[in-house]
Amino acid sequence: MTTVQPPAQTPLPADTELRRQVARLLVIRASGHLGDGQRRYPRWELENATIRRLLAEGVGGVILLGGSAAELRLRCEQLRGWSQQPLLICADVEEGVGQRFEGATWLAPPLAVGRLQRSDPQRAIALARRYGHCTGRQARLLGLNGVLAPVCDVNNNPLNPVINVRAWGETSSTAALLATAFLEGAQAEGVLCCAKHFPGHGDTCDDSHLELPRLPHGRERLEAIELPPFRAAIAAGCAAVMTAHLQLDALDPLRPATLSRPVLTGLLRQELGFTGLVITDALVMEAIASRWGAAQAAVLAFEAGSDLILMAADADAAIDGLVEAFSSGRLPLEQLQQSLRRREQALASASSRAPAAALAALGDLGELDTPQEQALARELVEISLDSRGPQLSAGPGVNLIRLDNSLNCAFLPAMAPALLRPAAAGYQCCLLDARGPSPWSGDPNAPLALERLPDGALLLQLFVRGNPFRGSAGADEPWPAVIRQLLRVGRLAGLTVLGSPYLWEALEPLLPGTIPAGYSPAQMPLAQAALLSRLGLAAGSIAEGGFTD
Amino acid sequence: MTTVQPPAQTPLPADTELRRQVARLLVIRASGHLGDGQRRYPRWELENATIRRLLAEGVGGVILLGGSAAELRLRCEQLRGWSQQPLLICADVEEGVGQRFEGATWLAPPLAVGRLQRSDPQRAIALARRYGHCTGRQARLLGLNGVLAPVCDVNNNPLNPVINVRAWGETSSTAALLATAFLEGAQAEGVLCCAKHFPGHGDTCDDSHLELPRLPHGRERLEAIELPPFRAAIAAGCAAVMTAHLQLDALDPLRPATLSRPVLTGLLRQELGFTGLVITDALVMEAIASRWGAAQAAVLAFEAGSDLILMAADADAAIDGLVEAFSSGRLPLEQLQQSLRRREQALASASSRAPAAALAALGDLGELDTPQEQALARELVEISLDSRGPQLSAGPGVNLIRLDNSLNCAFLPAMAPALLRPAAAGYQCCLLDARGPSPWSGDPNAPLALERLPDGALLLQLFVRGNPFRGSAGADEPWPAVIRQLLRVGRLAGLTVLGSPYLWEALEPLLPGTIPAGYSPAQMPLAQAALLSRLGLAAGSIAEGGFTD
Repeated sequence: MTTVQPPAQTPLPADTELRRQVARLLVIRASGHLGDGQRRYPRWELENATIRRLLAEGVGGVILLGGSAAELRLRCEQLRGWSQQPLLICADVEEGVGQRFEGATWLAPPLAVGRLQRSDPQRAIALARRYGHCTGRQARLLGLNGVLAPVCDVNNNPLNPVINVRAWGETSSTAALLATAFLEGAQAEGVLCCAKHFPGHGDTCDDSHLELPRLPHGRERLEAIELPPFRAAIAAGCAAVMTAHLQLDALDPLRPATLSRPVLTGLLRQELGFTGLVITDALVMEAIASRWGAAQAAVLAFEAGSDLILMAADADAAIDGLVEAFSSGRLPLEQLQQSLRRREQALASASSRAPAAALAALGDLGELDTPQEQALARELVEISLDSRGPQLSAGPGVNLIRLDNSLNCAFLPAMAPALLRPAAAGYQCCLLDARGPSPWSGDPNAPLALERLPDGALLLQLFVRGNPFRGSAGADEPWPAVIRQLLRVGRLAGLTVLGSPYLWEALEPLLPGTIPAGYSPAQMPLAQAALLSRLGLAAGSIAEGGFTD
Repeated sequence: MTTVQPPAQTPLPADTELRRQVARLLVIRASGHLGDGQRRYPRWELENATIRRLLAEGVGGVILLGGSAAELRLRCEQLRGWSQQPLLICADVEEGVGQRFEGATWLAPPLAVGRLQRSDPQRAIALARRYGHCTGRQARLLGLNGVLAPVCDVNNNPLNPVINVRAWGETSSTAALLATAFLEGAQAEGVLCCAKHFPGHGDTCDDSHLELPRLPHGRERLEAIELPPFRAAIAAGCAAVMTAHLQLDALDPLRPATLSRPVLTGLLRQELGFTGLVITDALVMEAIASRWGAAQAAVLAFEAGSDLILMAADADAAIDGLVEAFSSGRLPLEQLQQSLRRREQALASASSRAPAAALAALGDLGELDTPQEQALARELVEISLDSRGPQLSAGPGVNLIRLDNSLNCAFLPAMAPALLRPAAAGYQCCLLDARGPSPWSGDPNAPLALERLPDGALLLQLFVRGNPFRGSAGADEPWPAVIRQLLRVGRLAGLTVLGSPYLWEALEPLLPGTIPAGYSPAQMPLAQAALLSRLGLAAGSIAEGGFTD
């Protein structure tokens, strides 16, 4: 008998060392808050004791959400203290660091710039670049070295419930130009960027946080619409690409892109020639987690061509599964070494661009944003507003605010202009939360049950945009019929839409010229103030007098 | 001609020095957040540039609200860096530092202990003392040296809209015993305490944040009910007393207590013999601000016998008014020197008790609370729960949550047990915010408009308690009639009341033994979890899967 020689391969590292190497490729989820009791999503955000153990065992990445800029600054320092290696600490700061970490600058969403690109492409590109510099600089000052942006998806489907204003463009060329300008600005500040969600999440009606979207698109269509922004980002030196949880039957009828070798290795690595880091989108999302266990999903992602595993449903199980797969030869050890090298290069390349004063001094956290960044935030709001009609009449009236979730609503603090300015003009606030008593009559021609609302003319303020876990971006609510109903009974005082341009475009044509109305893609207080000023509600006397909780 | 000699008096300090001395007696309001853009109440919370100027000009005190424990720690250090003298930095942390600063320990309200006192006085006193130690220790570790507690008001009026569970007792003796135990515990940790609101705010139906309550009580009645807790606090060495914005016609028909010489000097100083610091309640409150300007109110408060001025409606005007009054001889300079001495003594006395490690290390902020403090928080919840009836049946049903304000609701974060546990049992959440579409039918016998709510049996969860600016503590809503209505139609699944014991006591007798029900004076997530466990909704599988905003 002769024994068959196994093919030559990298020798197996000792068990512990293999585990540590595998662990380095995981990105675990933690709260940006310091205390376990402050976690907003304790099901997903690990406890400090667990984070500490995993970092000691070699886990190499953390994704943070929540907390103030000051907490983030302290948190990043704490996490680095718990690790014996350079960490990747990243966050989904697509709309400025202030989108996720209060106290940093919160910018109008990318599509604000995307829409400007039609009329003033040079200014749009300059704004996208400043947007990137602002995001990258503040991220780095607070301790992040990974920015999980830009969104490279082309939002060509107005029903898309999850991308919408997060996209840089509704056409391929706009998305390509602006996403690239953003990432060049951000990476120049010493952080790595991540183009997402490959091969393109713009043309779906489903939210992959909740289910697995399927797309019929083949290579030709992808080449025409979805791929150009990723090609451009790669050409511009984008350090990382994040995969999408989408099923593209024409490319791989069996597996979603995140777990698909034809998509990640065939299309992204070989055809697009991407040599940087491939990061999965969060593996806890239902599109993946409802079909594959934590270990299985991690192994399949590596088999497909991923380098880093984001938010495995169970970090220990994912490490175990990968160690087993590398030990058994199911996954080649060369791939492990290559992923580690890519990770190291991406981190080194980012930090090589960071200036000497890499972190903000603790005493300076109250003045994190520069005057230039404040001006950028204002300019982005101003270029993105639309408004029409006369000034809003003084009340009495009703300030009817439609929002997804009134609990923990970051854009409506107690003193939000959307609350206070109408109040000062005599408009009594009424909050329409999807989880409140129904405001609907059941009559399709007069859908709003007016007897359930306070008396008076209504200022409708609709906060509607694509966001994870929200479902439909408001497309299932009968706002056109409400507008017609209120016009019929003479009770429409005015309209604002904050968020989705598609809702505004559906409602604005229904309004006679006598109705004041306006649109802002941004929802934060700065945008509310600017939009309501256009409608004649300036800052000034404030009717509500509360000063404590 | 002979010139009449003016009476001998302290020589006037030079102008600038007088201004600096006067400024030292002001306590200005600032946000606990670091950035101007993070302020929750920008009408009242000064901008950093103004705070910096006022501290440089000698202002000696700051009251903080809002922000996380970590931000508070950085904020106090920042404020001290902006001042050239020892600052008083205080906060309304009546229910633990976590009540105002997220990440510190949030304790069940004092009345939880007050109710225990009836059955187990020794344990109640021990708990009140631990409550004080916990609050004082965490306050000091984060940089505060003033705790604006204990509330010494006797909550003998169930309709009181603003004190309610904030009181330590519903009888004079309980309030005296427990408020004293609290302040001894807290002051032992190196902070100064402040007994409030003198001469007693327990027996009012009005909120002095909104209007000036009038009380008919004369000396005898005060001696019997209101004064004993203050006498006890003074005897125990309480460093400060805060005045009430209440009109007591029998003592002073012209002026509210805060501005009344008969009350502050006659009663508090002379009769009760208090030699510590007298601090006004916030002068921006409508009870004062609607009748007196900032300078006038400050001068009247000093004339009455106050030492420190809290939240003048305009700090510069208050300083100007006081400088003028001291310069002109309207106020004697001796009084200024005496107030400054009292302030200095109170600060020195507090810091003399602080241990060497006065401030928390920044790296330790995630573990601010000790295991003993965590156990205290749990014990306070456990001793204060009441429950009855069987376990809650599984849904489908409706989790009807009544709350004052769903925006910025600290006790209902996304993962609050009051939301998630009923969801896991099949109860769909419906939020009843006073500012939502009306849930009321107009029929007094069937007040809840059931057709506006989702189908199914209702778990009523009523978050109702006395809080500033809220009005009635729910007493104007027809909950007894709702209970009867739901029983009649067989749709009452269960009831929880979180907050006011008076609402629970009104509703509980209406329930047959078959209805699961429970009460907690505390509203925070820890209390929700304990209360719902009593009703059979344990932690475990969680139905809602969101993991990002």
